[in-house]
Order: sequence, then structure tokens, then C-alpha cells
Amino acid sequence: MFKIGIIGATGYTGQELVEVLCEHPVVKMAYLSAKVEKEQNISKIFPSLVGKIDLPCGDLKINEAIKATDIVFLAVPHTVSMEIAPKFLKAGKKVIDLSADFRLKNAKIYQKWYGVKHKTPQLLPQAVYGLPELYREKIKKAQLVANPGCYPTAVILGLAPLSEGGYINCDNIIIDAKTGMTGAGRKPLLPLIFSEVNENIKAYKINEHQHMCEIEQELTRLVKKKVSIIFVPHVVPLNRGIMVTMYVKFRKQITPSKLIDFYKTFYRNEPFIRILDYGITPQTKDVDKTNYCSIGMKIDEKAKAAVIVSVIDNLGKGAARQAVQNMNIMCGFIETLGLK
Amino acid sequence: MFKIGIIGATGYTGQELVEVLCEHPVVKMAYLSAKVEKEQNISKIFPSLVGKIDLPCGDLKINEAIKATDIVFLAVPHTVSMEIAPKFLKAGKKVIDLSADFRLKNAKIYQKWYGVKHKTPQLLPQAVYGLPELYREKIKKAQLVANPGCYPTAVILGLAPLSEGGYINCDNIIIDAKTGMTGAGRKPLLPLIFSEVNENIKAYKINEHQHMCEIEQELTRLVKKKVSIIFVPHVVPLNRGIMVTMYVKFRKQITPSKLIDFYKTFYRNEPFIRILDYGITPQTKDVDKTNYCSIGMKIDEKAKAAVIVSVIDNLGKGAARQAVQNMNIMCGFIETLGLK
Amino acid sequence: MFKIGIIGATGYTGQELVEVLCEHPVVKMAYLSAKVEKEQNISKIFPSLVGKIDLPCGDLKINEAIKATDIVFLAVPHTVSMEIAPKFLKAGKKVIDLSADFRLKNAKIYQKWYGVKHKTPQLLPQAVYGLPELYREKIKKAQLVANPGCYPTAVILGLAPLSEGGYINCDNIIIDAKTGMTGAGRKPLLPLIFSEVNENIKAYKINEHQHMCEIEQELTRLVKKKVSIIFVPHVVPLNRGIMVTMYVKFRKQITPSKLIDFYKTFYRNEPFIRILDYGITPQTKDVDKTNYCSIGMKIDEKAKAAVIVSVIDNLGKGAARQAVQNMNIMCGFIETLGLK
Amino acid sequence: MFKIGIIGATGYTGQELVEVLCEHPVVKMAYLSAKVEKEQNISKIFPSLVGKIDLPCGDLKINEAIKATDIVFLAVPHTVSMEIAPKFLKAGKKVIDLSADFRLKNAKIYQKWYGVKHKTPQLLPQAVYGLPELYREKIKKAQLVANPGCYPTAVILGLAPLSEGGYINCDNIIIDAKTGMTGAGRKPLLPLIFSEVNENIKAYKINEHQHMCEIEQELTRLVKKKVSIIFVPHVVPLNRGIMVTMYVKFRKQITPSKLIDFYKTFYRNEPFIRILDYGITPQTKDVDKTNYCSIGMKIDEKAKAAVIVSVIDNLGKGAARQAVQNMNIMCGFIETLGLK
Repeated sequence: MFKIGIIGATGYTGQELVEVLCEHPVVKMAYLSAKVEKEQNISKIFPSLVGKIDLPCGDLKINEAIKATDIVFLAVPHTVSMEIAPKFLKAGKKVIDLSADFRLKNAKIYQKWYGVKHKTPQLLPQAVYGLPELYREKIKKAQLVANPGCYPTAVILGLAPLSEGGYINCDNIIIDAKTGMTGAGRKPLLPLIFSEVNENIKAYKINEHQHMCEIEQELTRLVKKKVSIIFVPHVVPLNRGIMVTMYVKFRKQITPSKLIDFYKTFYRNEPFIRILDYGITPQTKDVDKTNYCSIGMKIDEKAKAAVIVSVIDNLGKGAARQAVQNMNIMCGFIETLGLK
Repeated sequence: MFKIGIIGATGYTGQELVEVLCEHPVVKMAYLSAKVEKEQNISKIFPSLVGKIDLPCGDLKINEAIKATDIVFLAVPHTVSMEIAPKFLKAGKKVIDLSADFRLKNAKIYQKWYGVKHKTPQLLPQAVYGLPELYREKIKKAQLVANPGCYPTAVILGLAPLSEGGYINCDNIIIDAKTGMTGAGRKPLLPLIFSEVNENIKAYKINEHQHMCEIEQELTRLVKKKVSIIFVPHVVPLNRGIMVTMYVKFRKQITPSKLIDFYKTFYRNEPFIRILDYGITPQTKDVDKTNYCSIGMKIDEKAKAAVIVSVIDNLGKGAARQAVQNMNIMCGFIETLGLK
Repeated sequence: MFKIGIIGATGYTGQELVEVLCEHPVVKMAYLSAKVEKEQNISKIFPSLVGKIDLPCGDLKINEAIKATDIVFLAVPHTVSMEIAPKFLKAGKKVIDLSADFRLKNAKIYQKWYGVKHKTPQLLPQAVYGLPELYREKIKKAQLVANPGCYPTAVILGLAPLSEGGYINCDNIIIDAKTGMTGAGRKPLLPLIFSEVNENIKAYKINEHQHMCEIEQELTRLVKKKVSIIFVPHVVPLNRGIMVTMYVKFRKQITPSKLIDFYKTFYRNEPFIRILDYGITPQTKDVDKTNYCSIGMKIDEKAKAAVIVSVIDNLGKGAARQAVQNMNIMCGFIETLGLK
Repeated sequence: MFKIGIIGATGYTGQELVEVLCEHPVVKMAYLSAKVEKEQNISKIFPSLVGKIDLPCGDLKINEAIKATDIVFLAVPHTVSMEIAPKFLKAGKKVIDLSADFRLKNAKIYQKWYGVKHKTPQLLPQAVYGLPELYREKIKKAQLVANPGCYPTAVILGLAPLSEGGYINCDNIIIDAKTGMTGAGRKPLLPLIFSEVNENIKAYKINEHQHMCEIEQELTRLVKKKVSIIFVPHVVPLNRGIMVTMYVKFRKQITPSKLIDFYKTFYRNEPFIRILDYGITPQTKDVDKTNYCSIGMKIDEKAKAAVIVSVIDNLGKGAARQAVQNMNIMCGFIETLGLK
């Protein structure tokens, strides 16, 4: 059995990792840590885990963590990962980082968007962007995988099939995103408390969200020319789920069947992508507590434009479950193990 | 005291009308009707009204309604209004219709979008579109006011200032709308029940929503050339509030201060419009249970584009309170009476 | 593989049965039916099932259902079960009925509380009340199991350990229950629509809820003398979860450790019951999407009373998952199969 | 015009006070303070107030506050009020304290339940408990009013009429309370964040909530003998509203009409109490954003018991609006001014 460590086990992503990995048939939870007031059994912190797992969770002791594990998930804030990932890597461990620290190829862009200088830029070239639908072969051989952000996962999966055939107009693709609140993390901040969020819709960080550079990097790699986006994220009062509604212009006329065909062909062997029949739109609950991404589309012929709607569970395909999919690939397991 | 009738008093809009008009200083609730199982006092149906109003509410008896009232609000489904409005008009009553029946100037477009032939097209020319910020002078003299739809109110108020100066690109303005559930009406339909809606985000009627023709009609009148939109409405789990996030392209470069200036100038005397400082985005709760529309904006200079965010309470400025504003104007009252 | 039929597959309970049984390792979904407008694949009705199950769902054709299955779950309204259960039984099939039709031992009490005459009272003696913690041995041999109601499951499991030792005062045990909205069923009724339920707390059927007779029947069997309860259910705005807060008087002084000991002893071998440490209270999310019942308690010494708090997922231990637990027992599978 | 000060204007109660007092016809908002990062206009902090009020809000400067105001509302945490109230009182100002500091008559009981020694016990005798339905005459003459807690308001109003005639059994009255989340305050605490609260029901502080002593003090004064209660509060996922479900035993048989009569007689002149017809239960939304308390009841004859259900808006009658009612009484205004 592979021995698993989770660093940052008490955030929403960490919690989801614990729940999913508890039921995974060929791995064993071996080490947990988190910033907590005092070390205690994880099932004391989350009573829903009673009977499923019996492990202490306290401050990270990195030597113990290295000794106990074969592979570690870093579910910690950005800047923390770049401190600790190198130590696990040096000890020969596989690392799946769920922070933003290793997603960007360019340390300067990291500094611009995250406001801090990158401390281990030398690791960026070896880090593989963990979107299996695009980088499966690289993930197989990777020691360090940078698990994608939640918004980028939904957006990139929703647009990738349009990278072929020269149809898409790469300027100013419009992305209107709506997310549930677990996406904001498990932190005691005033704007996150129930009565501030409930019965409210809020747009935030218009064209300033740090996920923009990640989206642009990946779309540009796909299309092989500069892609720019307009990105407006919104928070709405629910726990889980992301819907991105994307408005794409085309360079040439496209038919519904051609459009659907692009998607079905691109994702023909993908176990976690669902392409809906033309005109059907997915809802976030279609993918609740799963690793699926579900995509619907509709053309506006007169405008040579389409609306693409992509949904994921922000803690599922948008974080923890995609990380488990990456683990399965990195370790040579069946890719869907523990995820279906 | 003006005597008020509300036809359709038990829907969400009707209920809001009753609540607002109960507290209005110069009118008197005189007649209520609704499709109900049996006639009973409105405060039996809505216990929150106990002590505020004491009137029976049963099936519409039109002669009684005519006798009892000076002005009537029709808070009924479309197709019903065009049956009953003519009778009130003929009797010399003022009519504020909250259905879609008299909003469109062209009976053929009505038929195309609402799927039924208009029965009283001869009334369309005299009906005034009840958006006071655009048509105040006409509303003053109107006998029949067509109260705007909820989405169109938020959208048109959000875009109207851009109609001047030739800046706006009128092709394919993108409108991504999010609404609370009272917008769907008080009807026993499966997709509306709590556990279907809660913890879910849903897009619907992509580029097919019946409010599109109303938006296009009014924007075209404003800009004086054909305006086309791409419109995607979404339902999110809250009771009240609409946010529309609009993506506008410009023909020429525009600065933030110029943009804000357009809005502040256009609405300089408007009591119910709030233009936020540049870069600040409104939230739906800023306008909860009010007649305000609050508008924020942000430019993407490299794209010659802007994001405009407009919020209203769908039952407030989006329906009942705007109807009361129209009543105030039609009857020569101070326009803000009962609304601040 | 055992072949499974679900009659009533599109209600919330039916849907949960489908989801749980899809992942069950030793059974095979073989037949689905429901009252639907037209027959279609279940994964068309519930897109979350795409890739998990591929079966049509249309009106019940009982002969086909009999032919296709070894065991059937009846997730239908009361009165429907007593029509169709006999046919499955006669054909030698095992039946797990999730309606109220076979829970009560006395047909007159059924008639009093449900307002209809029982049509197959002769089956009542053979029906086993499907609460494994109390009737495991009988369930093993049963052909017809009456799956308990959601409130009764939470209440009976919360009080059963007090049946021993003569401590409990059986008069007027007070039960204050709070439920999520899936408990009300997937039906297009006005009081169930989102904006009626959201932002509201409602008590209903005070001392008149039909689950009272089921609770009293079972508590009386346990204590072996007449038990009477005061029962007030409330609906609160969430999808899933029941909390019952029970106020129990004692005939003699009892200590915290004695009280906890009753519970730990009574449930010492139960895989789905969690007894919390003294003074800790469970939350509904501790048991979300599980078959667990979690119980906390606290004594008021001066009052010779205790507060017992019991939580379940109304669709889990309160309906579908408990039904699967019953299936496992009836079929000789490991009891926790597909449930942990 | 009376000049009003609000100390603690940015909590939920403070915010509600601002909103209600803005619309009050005979007072003028003159001074606001709160613990904020920097002083700014209150309408910057709460955009919903734009156009309604134009006042800065920064740290409390007590001399300025004294100079600017005739009457102050203290919407601050307990222990803060007892520091600052004396200064306002000494300067001859009227004080309405919304904290717990002056509600209890006995400083030792305060210390026991709130865990701190009272600093100004000499003020307790002059403080009037601000429940107008019980203490109107004293409030008229008071300089210092202790505005009741939210739970106590709902409970005491729900039980007060039973204090007469010797019917009620005063031992162990059972009170099961459910509250919306604004009752927990506007504080950045982990258990208050949206995803912790949403989709969950939680009981807390069973028989240990600090409002218990306030309830027992007032019920004991009313009944004129020792009253004891069992009190279990619960949080449910909504913003506003408290429902208390109370289980009362009687010493002698009582009829429905007698019971209702007690309530209607006791509250016959009260403008903010609604007694519902026998068997009808109130919902929290009946009193949303109002100063009403609505009470329903049902007898269990065989148990000589009744269920009393009392609802208030925790920020309305449970805090800010009741404080305004107290102000009206203290200042000789019409009692309902600004509240209907």
C-alpha cells in the first residue's frame, strides 16, 4: 500500500482529500498535519470521519512526514508550498501541490500576480501542470505535480477543444464565473461569515483575480498564440460548485454539430468529462461531490459566437479529486480508482 | 386619498405591492383579488400583514374592482392583462400593468417571443414603457403604463448612459444575469422546490429568454440603431436580487473618468440610481427591499471594453416598487413617496 | 449478482437508492420505474448518473418488474405500496417498502392516522419493522421489511437504550424535531418552493404528525408499557438532515457516566451508531450522506432529566441507506456493504 | 429633534438601529462610532445606506458623543457597556443598553454566567428591564434601560400570560429555541463562516446559555415563585428570525379557549403582540424586519400540557426595534413611531 501524507488536512480541500483517500482501495493514510491549536485525532476535529480514519493531526514535523509517507499532498496556502515541497522532493517523495506555487512557468508572472518573489524558481521547469486531460503523459513521469486552480480547471477544460482548427478568436474571451463558498477557504474572515454571504450575490476582483494568469498561460500553450481573457468571478450562496459561462467569438462560421464534434473528439477517451447534447446546459449539482467536468454549449449564429458552460465541483475536479486522479496517474494505478 | 386595486395580490410581486402601498402616505388600498381557493382576508393569507391591512382577497369581480378604485396594478401573468386592462381603461381608470403584455411596441414580436397572438394590439401605441429614468414625461400623461421586466430594468439602466457619444459597439453586447428565486414567481412547479434550487447554480434559456426582445427594443430606441445582445440568465439560491454583469466593447478608447462621467451626468437628477466610485462593484444586498439600482464599472483598456455591473431587487426596482414610482409620477405625487 | 428493482426511482429517496445501489459491489440495478411524463433513461432525468447507470425509467409494468428482479424497493407514497407489494411477495420476491404501509402492526391505527382503510391487513403480521438495531434477527428471515420513517428512526435510536433499567418516565416524552426539506418529498407544492422555505423556520402538525403512532408503537414495545410523546416537527432551510432534541424525565437519579454507559452497552456492536462523549452534541453534517446515527446527551441533575440529541441524514439512515442495510441483512451480505 | 448616538454601529444590531432610526420621524442621527480600521462615512461601510444618512463612523470619542447626543444606544459587547454607560448617565443622557450588562438584578449571578465581575453594580437597581409589555411605566421614567436579550424576549413574551391564575407548573419548563445567524453577531469566527453553517443544524450550550439566568429572573418575578427552565438553543441556516417552541405543564386542566383567553387578555392593548387563533403556528417570516412577536399555541389535553410557539425577528423585537420602542416610551413619543 502506498503511504499518503496530507499537509493542511483541515482546510476544505484537505478535508475532501481525507474523505476521498480514506475510501481509496490501494493507498493508506499515513500522516496528517495542519495549523491547529493542539494536536488531536482528525476524527475529533471532523466527527464525520469517526470510524473511517484514526490518525493524529498537529503541526507539521517534516522529518516525521518524510519518514511516514511515499507521496504527499500539499493543501496549504501559496508561499507555504514553495518552502516545504523541496524537502519532500529531495527525500525522493512524490509531491502533489494544491497551492498556486508551481502552476506558473514564469517566476516573474508569479511575483506580479501573487505579490511575492518565488523562492524556488529552479523547480518550476520540472513541475507538471496537473490537468490530466492535457498532460497525462507528463504527469506519469512527474515527481512534482502542480494541481490546477478551481476556476482554471473549469475554464481550460471548457475551452481546450476550441484550440484546434483555427476557429476561435483569442482576443478577449469573456469568462463569467460563479463559485460556491468553500472556494474561499476555511478561514475566519468577516466577508465569509454566513449572514454576509447568504442572500447576496457579489462580483469581486474584476479582471484582477490571480487565476487569470494561469488560465492565460494554459490557453496560450494550447492555441499556440497569445490568448487574452476578461474574467469576472462571483460568489453565490452555496457550499460547493463552480459554473463558468464563457462567451467565445469565432473567426469563421461554425455549426452546432461541428462544435459538439470538436468536444466529443477531443475528450473521446476521457473518463471524467461529460459533453452534453447540444443546447442542454449543465447544473452544478450534476457534478456535486465528483471528479467530473460537465460541458454544454449553444451557438449564436448571427454573432458567430458561442456560449460554453462548464461546471465542476470546486473541491472535486477543482481541487482534491483531481489531485487524486493525478496521484493515480503518477503511481501507475487505474486512473479512476477511488473516484467513481 | 387615491383608491388602489391590486389584481393578482398573492404572487410575490402582488405581495410586495401590498406591503409597499400599505405604508404609502397618500393612497388607500381599496380592492384586492387573486386566484385563490376561497376568498379570505389578505392578512389570513399573509400573516405578516396582520394589523396593516384588512381587506378580502378573492376571485376578480371586475365591476366591483372598477367601482372601488382609481388606479389598478395588474400583477398577473401575461395574456391575462390584455384581457382585463381594456375594461379598466374604458372605465377611465389608470392602469399599471406588471405583465409583459404592453411592453413591446410590435405585436408580431410579442407573438414570436410569447407564443400567443396579441388580443389588443390597438392599445400598444398608448402604453408607456414605465422606466421613469427614460420616459418620465410620457409616464406623467399616461393612462396605461407597462412596468418593465426585472432583467430589462437592470440591463437598460446599466447601459443607457452609453447610448450617447457614439462610443458603444452595439453588436453582441454580452449580458450575464443572475437572479434570486422570487423572480420565477410563486408557483407550485417542481424545478422551483427548495431542494432542487438550493445548493445549485443553473443557466437557462440561453439566448432564448423572452426578456431579450424587450431589452433590444429599448436599447435600440436609445442608441437609435439596431442593438443585439447575447443574454444568459442564471438562477442562484437566494430569494431576492438580480445582478447583471455586462461586457461592452467600445468603438474608441475611453478612460475611467470619462466612463463614470457618462453615468453621473446621465443620472444626475435621479433619486433611485446610485453610481459607485470607479472599480467598486455593487452587491445585491445593497439594494435589498428598495427601489434603487446600483451600478459599478471597470474598464479593460487593452480590450477597449468595460464590465458594467448593475444590481436591483427584482421585486423592488424590478417590479413592485418601480410600479409605485410610476404611480407617483402618473398621479402627480412626489416621485419618491412611500419609497424611501 | 442480485437483481434490484426500484419502484419510485425519481423521488428523493428513490434517487438516493439508485446512487447508493449503483456503487454496491454485489447487486445489479435491473429495473426502475416512476410516475414520469414519458419513459426515458434515468441518466437523462438525473444527469449526475451519467456513466453510472444505463436503465430506462417509465411507468411501472409489474410483470416486467417481477421478471427482472430478485428484490424490490418500494419508494412510493403510502397506499400505493399496499397495492403492489402483495404481487411481488406472491411472486416470491423480497420487498423493502419505504412507505408507511407496513410499519404499523394495527390496521385501525393505520386508518386513524393515515385516513384510509388498510387494504392488506393480513400482511401486517409478517412485515418486519426494518430497524436493524432492534430487529436484526427477524429481518434476516423476512420477505417483507417495512423501512422505518425518518423521524421515527432518529427518535427510536435516540431513546431505545433508556428502555432498560426502569429509569425512564414514559409519560409525555418531549420530542422537538428539525428536518431538511428533502424529507417533504419531491413534489410540486407551493409550500415547498424555494422562496417560501428559504429564510424561514416553521413548526407544523404539532402533536398530529403521522409518525407519532409509529414512534409510540415501537417505544411501547421496547419499554413494555404505554409510552406517550409530545412531538413537534419543524422545517428549516437545508436539503438534508434531521436533528431530534428529546427531553426525557427519569424516575430515579442518573449520572452522566451511567447514562453514557446505557448507550455504549446497548449499541456496542452496532456499525452505524455513534455515541458521543458526554456533553458533546452532534450536528447534522456529521452524518451527511451516510447511514450513521449520531447521539449526544446531557443531564440536568436537579431536574432528573436529560436532553438527548440524535441526528441522521433523512435520506440516509432515515430512508434509502437504511433500506440498503436491510437488504444486506435480508440477503445475507455483509451488513455494511456499500454503506461505508 | 432628539439627537441620537449609536455606539457600536457596525454590528448587525447597530446596523439595524441605523436603518430604523434613519426613517424615524422625530429623531436625528447625530453620532456614530464602532471599532473599525479607519474612520469613514457609514454609507461607505454599508452601501445600502447611501442617500439615507451621511455621518462618519470611527472609534468612540466619548466627550464628542456626549456633546452631540440626547440619547445613546449601546450596541456593544457585554463588559464594554458597563465601562461607558456611567459616563453618559453622569452627563444626563438617556441610555439604552443592548448588551447584557444591566439586565440582571444580581451582580453575583452576572459574574457566574458571564464570567466577569460587574464593575458598576450600583447602577443595577436603577436600570429598567426594557420589555415594554411588562415594564412600560418604569421605562417611561428610566434614564437607563437594559434592552432584553433576543431569546429572553421571545420566551418571556411567550410565557408571561401563563403567570396568572396558578395554572402553570414552574418546574423545568422546556424551551427549544432556533435562531438565525445574525444572532451570533458580526464577528470573524470560524464556526460562523458560510460553509460551516449552511446545510447544517447545530445545538449548542445545552442548559448553559447565558440567557437562561435572564429568563429565569424575569419569569420568577412574574410568577412570584422560583421558575426553572431547560433551555436548548439551536442555530439553523438563515439570517434572521427566532422561533422558541415551549413545552409547558399545567397544574390543572385548561381548555383551548381559556388558554387563548389568557393571552388575548394579557396583551389586549399591546401594539406589537399578535396572538394567533388556536392551533395556528407562526413562522419566523411573519415577523421578518418588524417589531412584532407572534404567538401560537396548542394543548395536549391528556398530558395537561401545551406547546407555545413564539417568534420574533432577533434583530427586530429581539434587539434594535425593541430598543427603538423603548426610546419612544422614554422620550414620550407615540410608542409605535417609526416601527409600523
